[in-house]
Amino acid sequence: MDYPEPIAKLIDNYTKLPGIGVKTATRLAFYTLGMDETDVFDFSKALTSAKQDLTFCEICGNITEKNVNPCVICQDDSRDQSTIFVVENSRDVMAMENTRDYHGLYHVLNGIISPSAGTGPEDINLPSLIRRLSEHQEINEVIVGTNVNAEGEATAMYLARLLKPAGLKVTRLAHGLAVGSDIDYADQLTLIKAVQGRTEL
Amino acid sequence: MDYPEPIAKLIDNYTKLPGIGVKTATRLAFYTLGMDETDVFDFSKALTSAKQDLTFCEICGNITEKNVNPCVICQDDSRDQSTIFVVENSRDVMAMENTRDYHGLYHVLNGIISPSAGTGPEDINLPSLIRRLSEHQEINEVIVGTNVNAEGEATAMYLARLLKPAGLKVTRLAHGLAVGSDIDYADQLTLIKAVQGRTEL
Repeated sequence: MDYPEPIAKLIDNYTKLPGIGVKTATRLAFYTLGMDETDVFDFSKALTSAKQDLTFCEICGNITEKNVNPCVICQDDSRDQSTIFVVENSRDVMAMENTRDYHGLYHVLNGIISPSAGTGPEDINLPSLIRRLSEHQEINEVIVGTNVNAEGEATAMYLARLLKPAGLKVTRLAHGLAVGSDIDYADQLTLIKAVQGRTEL
Repeated sequence: MDYPEPIAKLIDNYTKLPGIGVKTATRLAFYTLGMDETDVFDFSKALTSAKQDLTFCEICGNITEKNVNPCVICQDDSRDQSTIFVVENSRDVMAMENTRDYHGLYHVLNGIISPSAGTGPEDINLPSLIRRLSEHQEINEVIVGTNVNAEGEATAMYLARLLKPAGLKVTRLAHGLAVGSDIDYADQLTLIKAVQGRTEL
């Protein structure tokens, strides 16, 4: 026996989301049925609106509203125009912005170089970074803020080899112990990196 | 800094789902942005359709399409009209139907008696069960298939006390070891129930 079509379709749509299997999707679908009608309609509208009203900034690749392009960060002349922070996605921009400690510009790759997944430099938002750097001579430092895993490191390495010969300063975020962490809980690779990157007191 | 409004709204809507916090909602929202436009529109439509096109069966309380009421199970004359299986929700009906081993009728409570949550017998689909039993004298057995927890047991007890004096056979699903399970992994209460309900070989 199958569920009535409207709920079966909703379950099917929920399973398309990452990390959501049939059991969870079914639970979510039934939960949806019990929600206020306005909440469900708002949700439905938010889905189409997010898809229709958003785009990527034509300069940095960050997510932005279609009628705010370039994005607010690229439009902000008060920001330090000499530094570009390269990240994998818009969530990383948000994480960095929430520290209120960085005041330069960003470049969002919207992906990462991953030979195993068949993703090369031209498949992500990297050619536009090269163009941007050649057009804006005031940029003198590129901070590579890709994640600390094989793909992130490979992308960082690729960028360093590409940009350093052009006279740019290419830096990488420090690897080491997280603030508040216990040494005996840190994994071996992090400990090794923390020793390698030790600083003088 | 905040996300552009369309994505912030979508994140907000995802957090309204059970078990989804801000981090997961953000991940889901960005995943949604990367989905095919038709998939997102289908999802959006499925949400409103599930809310608009579904209702509860006027006889048993199971979920059904608005233009199929009473539901397909209640309309099926070939089913055993003498037995009613009482469950908490439509997912339980589906679980039972998938066994293809039960051919009677159902009654879906769409809730459970829970004094701690302030849910009494009149707050769930129980009065309609009483009415149904008094109107259909052909029903002679009520199988109580509520979950095996405090609320489920309390509801089963309540039904037994209410219906037995009326001459109805009220039964409860057997408690014991799950098929394929190991005795040393079973919890103590389940083991005690399994001993109490032991059968002769």
